[in-house]
Amino acid sequence: MSSFGSMWADLEPVGRHSSTGGYRRFAWTAVDATLREWFRGEAERRGLDLVTDRAGNLWAWSGNPDADGPGLVVGSHLDSVPDGGAFDGPLGVVSAFAALDELRARGFVPDRPLGIACFADEEGARFGVACAGSRLLTGVLDPDRARALTDDDGTTMAEAMATAGHDAAVLGRDEETLRRVGTFLELHVEQGRGLVDTGDPVGVASSIWPHGRWRLDLRGRADHAGTTRLADRDDPMLALVGAISVARASAERHGSLATVGKLRVRPNGVNAIPSEVTAWLDARGPSEDGVRSVVAEVAEAAGTVPAEESWTSSTDFDAGLRDRLAAVVGEGAGMPAPVLPTGAGHDAGILSAAGVETAMLFVRNPTGVSHSPAEHAEPADCLAGVDALARAIEALA
Amino acid sequence: MSSFGSMWADLEPVGRHSSTGGYRRFAWTAVDATLREWFRGEAERRGLDLVTDRAGNLWAWSGNPDADGPGLVVGSHLDSVPDGGAFDGPLGVVSAFAALDELRARGFVPDRPLGIACFADEEGARFGVACAGSRLLTGVLDPDRARALTDDDGTTMAEAMATAGHDAAVLGRDEETLRRVGTFLELHVEQGRGLVDTGDPVGVASSIWPHGRWRLDLRGRADHAGTTRLADRDDPMLALVGAISVARASAERHGSLATVGKLRVRPNGVNAIPSEVTAWLDARGPSEDGVRSVVAEVAEAAGTVPAEESWTSSTDFDAGLRDRLAAVVGEGAGMPAPVLPTGAGHDAGILSAAGVETAMLFVRNPTGVSHSPAEHAEPADCLAGVDALARAIEALA
Repeated sequence: MSSFGSMWADLEPVGRHSSTGGYRRFAWTAVDATLREWFRGEAERRGLDLVTDRAGNLWAWSGNPDADGPGLVVGSHLDSVPDGGAFDGPLGVVSAFAALDELRARGFVPDRPLGIACFADEEGARFGVACAGSRLLTGVLDPDRARALTDDDGTTMAEAMATAGHDAAVLGRDEETLRRVGTFLELHVEQGRGLVDTGDPVGVASSIWPHGRWRLDLRGRADHAGTTRLADRDDPMLALVGAISVARASAERHGSLATVGKLRVRPNGVNAIPSEVTAWLDARGPSEDGVRSVVAEVAEAAGTVPAEESWTSSTDFDAGLRDRLAAVVGEGAGMPAPVLPTGAGHDAGILSAAGVETAMLFVRNPTGVSHSPAEHAEPADCLAGVDALARAIEALA
Repeated sequence: MSSFGSMWADLEPVGRHSSTGGYRRFAWTAVDATLREWFRGEAERRGLDLVTDRAGNLWAWSGNPDADGPGLVVGSHLDSVPDGGAFDGPLGVVSAFAALDELRARGFVPDRPLGIACFADEEGARFGVACAGSRLLTGVLDPDRARALTDDDGTTMAEAMATAGHDAAVLGRDEETLRRVGTFLELHVEQGRGLVDTGDPVGVASSIWPHGRWRLDLRGRADHAGTTRLADRDDPMLALVGAISVARASAERHGSLATVGKLRVRPNGVNAIPSEVTAWLDARGPSEDGVRSVVAEVAEAAGTVPAEESWTSSTDFDAGLRDRLAAVVGEGAGMPAPVLPTGAGHDAGILSAAGVETAMLFVRNPTGVSHSPAEHAEPADCLAGVDALARAIEALA
């Protein structure tokens, strides 16, 4: 297990912000390049063959998936939300390498090729589209749209990729890569307290709620805060008030979740009535109709037509694989591991929707807190996750 | 009048943002240094003696204010709000040089020293305190507090001044500079439509409303937007909704103005419930009690104690000077120029409160729009302003 601790220690300082303690690991930045270099080093150390696909996702293969595939792939992502935690993403990648180490130490030889994947830009923190790497790989994100996406500084994804040494001209559904992937398995820290309630260190995912992101452009007229009569104002902050309060009330009514977590105010001066406020709405829930109703009600309150930046329908993971994994993971305890849904999107969800046989394992999160510097998992539970992943690989490969 | 046009053309591109067309001229930046260099050049070209005071304000003197003073000073500022207009500030500085040119062309010789002033950091766009240069000069802004003020990147005012070559160790009330200023006269574009209503190109200020800025720190708990139940959330966006809506309603009730024009959201991620939202409240009005009531009601709605970043009581300009100027400016029209109050703060207000004999001239603003790229004044009105300023100098010097 020492390989887990040493990998964790290597990643610990990368992209960590000194004052918040949170991670800022955004796609196609210098920090991202350091993380990719780390992945390359871990793959080389284990004699794996590293391949970068057309979308910029990294694949480290043991065995030849073209000749002897399709293979079994385990992995996750290394990027983060702004001021995110250490576990969301990296736990799945580090556990994949550690599980491989454990299996090799036991002398296990897989009977099909085994890959470890690191997906690019899972959080979409920089360009607004979550799971951009897996969406590009599977072709559900249009390459032209992706290339033109901009970050807050106006840099396009194509420019950011070029700076990082990846040619955005090759973006597009990558059949060659997809053919290699027979089964995909993603281990992830839980982002809720389901496993706290059941008292288990590891669980298996049943489904991912339908979820999406919408941008609300609230336009007004810039003017002087000290001289413009209230009646003469066209202040987009008032539309923002409507958007935020309706998002909450409407989500409650429809049994969904809705969040306005990101704002951009222009010109953002203390004594200037804003010319424009841009608000991003994240909405999800067990029912697609419920989510769609929330978005419609928020848009009406804000008086604007929302721009849909991403949308993912409900994803039910492969039922056979799910039950098999629940049995394998629960073997030690003498009963199947718990099976639970999640509101969080994952690359596993994108691959599942694209027809890949896919499953997810969750590791217990004692507070349920995620997307925060306070995100945490206990070391013993992380090791239980590595063990569960190793047993899953053994059963499937 | 060609000197006005050529100065205006020189300033036109400095700090202008290519996509918004607005100006971003913030204190102690490279753009600010270019503006100061421009001021120095205009002073040198006219044989004026340039002095930088302890606060970093620039003074260009004709004559010796120490030996033959105190003198008459005209001027304004060159910095801007984010995406501000071309007139707020620069019109007063350019008109001061142009009025001097006009008087010299006519052979006028003042019988007391004549200065042209350029105040530093009038808008407070970078460090949050408006009229920082004149507040430091007069000692109403504590030097320790000023040095420790930070911009959005965490740079302190002391560091920013040092980078720009000004030693922040010398900040503090500057008696030597104040002794030189017998009378201060600031020409400014009007930031309302008072002169449109009266049909005059130029007016005289009566008073500045009491006004201030408060920072509201709204704290919550960062968490995942897709997995945290609504009931478990501590989302500071809901407190923001209360602050903005109460600011508007309370200002209406108290006959005041209140604006939330600047926000900072942390971490500002689409799928992250914010850990903190910081909102800035600008409040003003004819009555100090009304303004104080608005701030108290907003603070209660937001559930926080507001941090007062600046406060300026009502300022009534010198009545004798005001009436004399109204008569001088109105001479051509055969009746005194209109006298009108304003809700906007100015360095003239700070100097007046500090006991300097002070007056302001306003130039008509056809739309009343200010703090916006659309801010405008007609060329003929600008020239009428230069003419009024020249006649005022003639009468007072």
